[in-house]
Amino acid sequence: MAECEGAKSPMELYEKLTAQGEQVRALKTAKATKADVDAAVQLLIKLKTDYKQMTGQDYKAGCPPSENSVAPDNGPAAGGADDEDTVDPWNVSTNNAKGVDYDKLILRFGSSKVDKELVDRIEKVSGQKSHRFLRRGIFFSHRDMHQVLDAYEKQKSFYLYTGRGPSSEAMHVGHLIPFIFTKWLQDVFDIPLVVQLTDDEKYLWKDLSLEDCHRFAVENAKDIIACGFDVNKTFIFSDLDYMGASPEFYRNVVKVQKHVTFNQVKGIFGFTDSDCIGKISFPAIQAAPSFSSSFPQIFKGRKDIQCLIPCAIDQDPYFRMTRDVAPRIGYPKPALLHSTFFPALQGAQTKMSASDANTSIFLTDTPKQIKNKVNKHAFSGGKDTVEEHRKYGGNPDVDVAFMYLTFFLEDDEQLEKIRQDYASGALLTGELKKLLIETLQPMIEQHQQRRKQVTEEEVKQFMTPRPLHFNF
Amino acid sequence: MAECEGAKSPMELYEKLTAQGEQVRALKTAKATKADVDAAVQLLIKLKTDYKQMTGQDYKAGCPPSENSVAPDNGPAAGGADDEDTVDPWNVSTNNAKGVDYDKLILRFGSSKVDKELVDRIEKVSGQKSHRFLRRGIFFSHRDMHQVLDAYEKQKSFYLYTGRGPSSEAMHVGHLIPFIFTKWLQDVFDIPLVVQLTDDEKYLWKDLSLEDCHRFAVENAKDIIACGFDVNKTFIFSDLDYMGASPEFYRNVVKVQKHVTFNQVKGIFGFTDSDCIGKISFPAIQAAPSFSSSFPQIFKGRKDIQCLIPCAIDQDPYFRMTRDVAPRIGYPKPALLHSTFFPALQGAQTKMSASDANTSIFLTDTPKQIKNKVNKHAFSGGKDTVEEHRKYGGNPDVDVAFMYLTFFLEDDEQLEKIRQDYASGALLTGELKKLLIETLQPMIEQHQQRRKQVTEEEVKQFMTPRPLHFNF
Repeated sequence: MAECEGAKSPMELYEKLTAQGEQVRALKTAKATKADVDAAVQLLIKLKTDYKQMTGQDYKAGCPPSENSVAPDNGPAAGGADDEDTVDPWNVSTNNAKGVDYDKLILRFGSSKVDKELVDRIEKVSGQKSHRFLRRGIFFSHRDMHQVLDAYEKQKSFYLYTGRGPSSEAMHVGHLIPFIFTKWLQDVFDIPLVVQLTDDEKYLWKDLSLEDCHRFAVENAKDIIACGFDVNKTFIFSDLDYMGASPEFYRNVVKVQKHVTFNQVKGIFGFTDSDCIGKISFPAIQAAPSFSSSFPQIFKGRKDIQCLIPCAIDQDPYFRMTRDVAPRIGYPKPALLHSTFFPALQGAQTKMSASDANTSIFLTDTPKQIKNKVNKHAFSGGKDTVEEHRKYGGNPDVDVAFMYLTFFLEDDEQLEKIRQDYASGALLTGELKKLLIETLQPMIEQHQQRRKQVTEEEVKQFMTPRPLHFNF
Repeated sequence: MAECEGAKSPMELYEKLTAQGEQVRALKTAKATKADVDAAVQLLIKLKTDYKQMTGQDYKAGCPPSENSVAPDNGPAAGGADDEDTVDPWNVSTNNAKGVDYDKLILRFGSSKVDKELVDRIEKVSGQKSHRFLRRGIFFSHRDMHQVLDAYEKQKSFYLYTGRGPSSEAMHVGHLIPFIFTKWLQDVFDIPLVVQLTDDEKYLWKDLSLEDCHRFAVENAKDIIACGFDVNKTFIFSDLDYMGASPEFYRNVVKVQKHVTFNQVKGIFGFTDSDCIGKISFPAIQAAPSFSSSFPQIFKGRKDIQCLIPCAIDQDPYFRMTRDVAPRIGYPKPALLHSTFFPALQGAQTKMSASDANTSIFLTDTPKQIKNKVNKHAFSGGKDTVEEHRKYGGNPDVDVAFMYLTFFLEDDEQLEKIRQDYASGALLTGELKKLLIETLQPMIEQHQQRRKQVTEEEVKQFMTPRPLHFNF
């Protein structure tokens, strides 16, 4: 503590803060003991309080006190170390078994809650019952959805943009969430969809060859197609291919690159001077598909078609940046619908990750593998013995099997009954897990069958830049 | 001085040095008095000496002492503030009326001198008399030329890559130098040429629209074509077009971007945290054409064809970086031939610049404009009166008219006679200027006529990715 009390100027304090933030991250990366991490976090919080007292402003990584740099709209740095939840495009973790505190995240990111009014309105405008992901708060946060609906009611259409970073051939069930929901949005609103496969990003971030990243993109495209998208309404692209096939896309990338400084991406993404220049400029590539002029073959050169991005909340930093840049280059800001994370089998403290086979149920798993993984690894909210469970009941709020059912079980009443029975102790952990297994097994088997039917020709069709069946 | 003596660690000294370098640059930018600049430079030199004593290493901007970062090969930062000459891709200046000290530059950049042995060897291998730019030391520095010639003698061909930043429609005579020389190289070695027009770079650096930059690229292409290049051997491309037309080019850009850090471009180009991410990643785009796999249509996918880059020495920082990356991504390092700068009319302290009409003779100037500009603005090495001139003679080493004649007058004997006559006082300044005017007027008129004959169709041909008339 003596250290921070010695700081004389805002700049000195700012530098101490930056160093301490790095210290916290380093400890976490090195998997230091909880006591060590907590002590470092305590000092960080103390420094932040001092900083606020001294400058009257909140500390922002990458924004020194004297500098009048443009902050991303509503954007305090993601992945801040000042509370327990870490949420950025590369890391998601919390100490809470119930998962990330999403209400806090809405405040931190400056987005809006998907409330009952919005869910009702989507139902009314689309004329369809709301998707279970909306009914159950899985897509829990948004930006500008009311504006999108206002325009849609006046016959002004919009388009969907979502994506995936193809870091391996294997996709897991969590990866399906944005695609299941995007397919529903496409169906009920009857609008175009573009899907970006960021094979260039994976090459820049991982120890993989360009060829492998591109191959993973094509393999992942098959899983995406197997979600049932209509080839007449959907364009799936690999960055490595489309950048070299569309001067308009590259022009938008350069436009974004001109309007974002290193200071800004440092603040938003936590990049450092040791990062490669590819990482530093990549956010512009994820931004560009938010603008309809990146797809002249679909939108006939129009640059005013509004974009709606359904994605997990960890991708929001990219789009805060995009929304900051959009008006400065003459484009509408993309709207967003944010989902919660799909929990790891071991519990909601982290999200499911393809790089750890034991945390994940893969789309390639056999019925037996699914059964074994759920039974062996799915964190249980049940009690230690049958007797205790019957007496005190289980805790569905931390039970991973129950969480997965909220994602995949369509029937609201059935889900509510399971919740009550589990909480009362009428339903045992083994029985709950069995219900999940019986839900996942046919779902994944059907996915595998649909994927098997996806031909190379079909993949090529989806991935060819071409007009879609819409008139703009 | 007290300041630097107080530094206790290499890191502290490094930081003082960095700050002092910035101070020198700031003073120069602000056009501070010579005394102020000199004092700041003196302190900088003292700090560098201390640093070397303390660490045993030379100070390198952007490479802190504790950091094991990869330095660009042979590359101390360009535009260093420790001597009078500033040379980087955006600034060239010296206090010496004879121009930049090129021998010092060879030492600073770690390149090799184009000596008589090399000039003789080029003559021998090509079977042609050396170009006047080689005979007169205008292409004065190189990297790996002997290796290129060794391979050529063993029937292993190479290709040429040069470029231009299209910041306006107007090109001046200085812009012709690399193209005149490149055309000669292409003719005597019979090899392919790729010409990069960095319209994306100009958009990122200047207050110009993408559309204007692209239009300037196409206009500049006409001037380049008017230099007499063979459409069967030459591919001219705008970055904005070719990036969106060649997945292989983008793949090479991403490869370079993965292998260069912000620390490195900071050290090489002097970028800061306030620079946009487009500038920071741009060097990879200028690097990529150095690799034959960026042009599969020309080299049939081969990635082992050696590249030779004729360019002005201020572009060397890009290619030091490129040569550092090349072996790490499995490509041969490009070879280079560096030219001196083409002096401004006002004198060799700066190079001719299109943005200042009075320093430049444009390729669009009329015979009358050429005459007036030379007579009015060309800095003279002559004496104040005819009597003095006759008595003491003029100084051809600082005389801009004479310098220009060394670029454009083909006859060595005639040039030498002019030099002697001017130095002896036999030739008056007015007469010398007349000789230059009579050389420039027909040269530029012929250029204008050839340019007029360049059709849109022809430009399109040159700028279309296609096979050239070579078998690889």
